[in-house]
Amino acid sequence: MTNSFPITDRNRVRRRSQRGDYDRETVEAILDKARVCHVGFSVDERPYVIPTIHARVEDTLYLHGSTANRMMNTLAAGGPACVTATLIDGLVLARSAFHHSMEYRSVVVFGTARAVTEHDEKLEALKQVVEKIMPGRWEDTRRPNDAEMKSTLVIAISIEEASAKIRKGGVTDEEEDYALQHWAGVVPLSLQPQEAVPDSQLAADVEVPTYVQEWIRSQQA
Amino acid sequence: MTNSFPITDRNRVRRRSQRGDYDRETVEAILDKARVCHVGFSVDERPYVIPTIHARVEDTLYLHGSTANRMMNTLAAGGPACVTATLIDGLVLARSAFHHSMEYRSVVVFGTARAVTEHDEKLEALKQVVEKIMPGRWEDTRRPNDAEMKSTLVIAISIEEASAKIRKGGVTDEEEDYALQHWAGVVPLSLQPQEAVPDSQLAADVEVPTYVQEWIRSQQA
Repeated sequence: MTNSFPITDRNRVRRRSQRGDYDRETVEAILDKARVCHVGFSVDERPYVIPTIHARVEDTLYLHGSTANRMMNTLAAGGPACVTATLIDGLVLARSAFHHSMEYRSVVVFGTARAVTEHDEKLEALKQVVEKIMPGRWEDTRRPNDAEMKSTLVIAISIEEASAKIRKGGVTDEEEDYALQHWAGVVPLSLQPQEAVPDSQLAADVEVPTYVQEWIRSQQA
Repeated sequence: MTNSFPITDRNRVRRRSQRGDYDRETVEAILDKARVCHVGFSVDERPYVIPTIHARVEDTLYLHGSTANRMMNTLAAGGPACVTATLIDGLVLARSAFHHSMEYRSVVVFGTARAVTEHDEKLEALKQVVEKIMPGRWEDTRRPNDAEMKSTLVIAISIEEASAKIRKGGVTDEEEDYALQHWAGVVPLSLQPQEAVPDSQLAADVEVPTYVQEWIRSQQA
């Protein structure tokens, strides 16, 4: 396994290519941090984009959903898929309207989807989805039973091509605009957790687990 | 104008349809709050999903980009487009692995794209994009000049069909699982701003504008 994804006609970052990044570690870090991805697929030659939870294991993205879900069934049929994950990092307020922008990190993945039918791989994928939602959670849940396994479709998308695009570094303005008296700068943004809210039916003596509290603290800006 | 989008075969929320919402106000509120959208389009019958900034004016979504941008040029050619915006509201930790989920609000829009060539509509769209990034900002920037207008492609997507999907209300578990001693609840998530960071080249006497400070305060959880 090399440390970069191949640059192809499909994943090459065309615009502002200095922002393009094919480094495997960069791509994987963005995929792993993003809470959801947006999956693109086609039905009757029309594009659809649906948000869903993903989990990455090495070069494979796993998605899950109901066996009655159209997106999942379309992917299971094995067509080409595009999966995009985006982290929003800030608002860029330049002196010129033209240079207003966002700071962000995004990854676009192209791959071929397949349904995961083998029991152990399917269970492992579901474990990774739960662990993606909250690290440490799998050991603290009731595992899927046979009926739940049967009603869940798991899709694996091999990451054949991927590229990251990162916009950071704050404001860029035209040379002659730096003398203008407009304020310019960045408003940082990040997805922040608040304190955990117990289910109303939870027994009073069940406390928020340490792994949940630690995760919340680890995310706080 | 009616207060709901028509329910068609394309925008009908199929899975867990009790979560589907075609109410115009609901759809618009999600589109307006989302900082970015994910645009789906097809090139050579392959799906692509790209994040970008959007602004909504009544039943039209405006996107902007370079005249050299492939997505923008593909949309300008007038094919069908799908635009999806997602707000992440929380992590749902159920007692069972199966019922782990996210709280979210998402909108899927289907429409036909066109390039905006008329000067006034194009300038107004760019104003709305800047105002979407930061309300009150347009009056406090250097407006686009002719060269900038020429190098910018603005796309309008008429919102022909749209549906929202909202997952809220916390944990759902199977009846027999409520007796389990696993903690269950929601970890709320929201995109939070931090204090504004001035551009390193900003004169020391230019303070963060009131409209920026007020927006930051208005977003804080």
